[in-house]
Amino acid sequence: MSDTVGKVIRCRAAILWELKSKMKIEEIEVAVPVKDQIRVKIIYNALCHSDLHVIDGSLKTRLPIILGHEATGIVESVGDEVKAFKTGDVVIPLYQPQCRKCAACQHGDTNLCTSLSFSNEGSHFTCRGKQVFPFMGLGTFSEYAVIREHMLVKIDPRAPLDKACLAGCGLATGYGAAVNTAQIRRGERVAVIGLGGVGLSAIQGAKNAGASAIYAIDINSEKFDSARKMGATHCVNPRDVPKDGKFGSWFIKNFGAVDKSLECIGNVQCMKDAVEIVERGWGRAVMVGIAPDGATLSFNPGHLTIGKTITGSIFGGWKSIDDIPMLVEEMRKGKIEVDPLITHRFDLEKVDEAVELLKNGKSIRSVISLSKL
Amino acid sequence: MSDTVGKVIRCRAAILWELKSKMKIEEIEVAVPVKDQIRVKIIYNALCHSDLHVIDGSLKTRLPIILGHEATGIVESVGDEVKAFKTGDVVIPLYQPQCRKCAACQHGDTNLCTSLSFSNEGSHFTCRGKQVFPFMGLGTFSEYAVIREHMLVKIDPRAPLDKACLAGCGLATGYGAAVNTAQIRRGERVAVIGLGGVGLSAIQGAKNAGASAIYAIDINSEKFDSARKMGATHCVNPRDVPKDGKFGSWFIKNFGAVDKSLECIGNVQCMKDAVEIVERGWGRAVMVGIAPDGATLSFNPGHLTIGKTITGSIFGGWKSIDDIPMLVEEMRKGKIEVDPLITHRFDLEKVDEAVELLKNGKSIRSVISLSKL
Repeated sequence: MSDTVGKVIRCRAAILWELKSKMKIEEIEVAVPVKDQIRVKIIYNALCHSDLHVIDGSLKTRLPIILGHEATGIVESVGDEVKAFKTGDVVIPLYQPQCRKCAACQHGDTNLCTSLSFSNEGSHFTCRGKQVFPFMGLGTFSEYAVIREHMLVKIDPRAPLDKACLAGCGLATGYGAAVNTAQIRRGERVAVIGLGGVGLSAIQGAKNAGASAIYAIDINSEKFDSARKMGATHCVNPRDVPKDGKFGSWFIKNFGAVDKSLECIGNVQCMKDAVEIVERGWGRAVMVGIAPDGATLSFNPGHLTIGKTITGSIFGGWKSIDDIPMLVEEMRKGKIEVDPLITHRFDLEKVDEAVELLKNGKSIRSVISLSKL
Repeated sequence: MSDTVGKVIRCRAAILWELKSKMKIEEIEVAVPVKDQIRVKIIYNALCHSDLHVIDGSLKTRLPIILGHEATGIVESVGDEVKAFKTGDVVIPLYQPQCRKCAACQHGDTNLCTSLSFSNEGSHFTCRGKQVFPFMGLGTFSEYAVIREHMLVKIDPRAPLDKACLAGCGLATGYGAAVNTAQIRRGERVAVIGLGGVGLSAIQGAKNAGASAIYAIDINSEKFDSARKMGATHCVNPRDVPKDGKFGSWFIKNFGAVDKSLECIGNVQCMKDAVEIVERGWGRAVMVGIAPDGATLSFNPGHLTIGKTITGSIFGGWKSIDDIPMLVEEMRKGKIEVDPLITHRFDLEKVDEAVELLKNGKSIRSVISLSKL
């Protein structure tokens, strides 16, 4: 691909021009990378609920925008300040950066690097003379994207790229929430609320951490097969709660309290349930789902008095550049399984079919093909 | 005192016959201890806010009741199943038991022994033919009390009993919340909201844990002298927030976010403030105060998403029988200071003066003398 180095690239991308509309496949220009920027040929990108939240307007960003943040690619060319990457490196873009300089990067207990870039940072994309913003500083529903060095990580080139893209968001978020944030230990009882890609990955994290019971909870029973494949020992549908009952007390009466719970939706009622169903004394409820702007979580503070702990994480608590290659390695060796998460595959032209499936609870992850390898 | 062994003891106690009334000093009968029971001659008992909450009705219990749960005493006689105590042992009664048998006692991460006794368990006190209940299974505003073996701990007889009584509640609760629950580490910045006996003890815990900045927060500036004596580096009055301002953002603007916050009142607005003022990524907000029945804590769940942790504890997270003697030992050696907490001393007859002072924010701890040593 050396014939593109130093030149603006013209390629295909899916652009969201307006909220609540379909994405349009357009020809765009992708700028030459300068300074700490890296231009990446995007091979695969899986569709995540966060992309949907931009489309439906619940996650506010600038428009027009190129969505996508769960991808694998190959370095095409690099800016003059880039040290750790060269043309041909196999990479995963990271919406959660790791700059190694900020207070968060230097703190052992958090991965929330404060050099986070969202779509308001300027753009390297243009379409018909108009600037197009990259979602989360990435915008990987494009055949090429320009990404900053602290938002990219090299992975083993032997990794299956069509699966490894999930380590860029859903898999890392759920699996890490289980092992890093919930700190699940051998023999513990765990509940996972919400069985999308994140929840199913949390189940796998719980299983690999040695949980003795894993309750998979969703109002969509079609998700239960996948949940069992990922390691769930029990599947629970809150629609089975009698009409005058409340989920929390019903769950405890039927199954007993759990040591750890993970809310993987972003629904404040489910978050309250997650608080209610954990053990007094040592129970830990982890909020993985992101609630809509303006949401309020309300509960009886007595849950805290009796020693429950409530917390949350972004990107599974992983220090992204340090930890993601290890996650890909475990995937490559079969210790982490992603096949049950990938329910559909599409070419970029069909990205809106993937949107419809995800919106209607008919898919977990659709992997979209972009550039050819 | 061997002349009392095996006999019912007649002695003085303060009885609350009705809510929102004064306690009455009465002659009562204290039963002979049987099985795992121990009859303790109570020497000192300090008045705590929880006692007040019974009087004002916000903490529901049975009546008539003998309040008091922060005491020191001497074992007078023991039931036939008691193994660890004998007449003459110097002891602290424990409202938070440690049975060593329940799941909580066998779990490393909690002190919440489930054999907790409150005032609904029957009583060893009678007054004019009527049963009188012991608050929290103790009822130590009596010259003698009958206490179960797993709710009592032996301390070094050289300990100053008029001070060591604080290790039975306020000191242990605040100090432990800082070192055990908040897990304050050297160099951290800490905020303590509410400067009663618990909050001031949390300040001392933060100081001894090596906090680099300790913000003491109360709407009653009269507490600030004591807070400084206990180790506060800054005193903050929320009444200084401009009228259109909110405490959380005002605090962060003026002082910066803190690593750990401790709410030591039981006020849900203050709990929300405690959540707001801790650092994203690793901040930990600890609810030490107990909110009234039916209270609801509401906040933006985004605080959890960005990695804040919210928790709470009872009795400072101490495994009571294991840990309290160590706390008394540190007090005896001067590593833990309690003099600034003890603002008043009264004989039992004057217990209602102590109530008035505490209610009006004019005292921290009043130590009440009961039996003579």
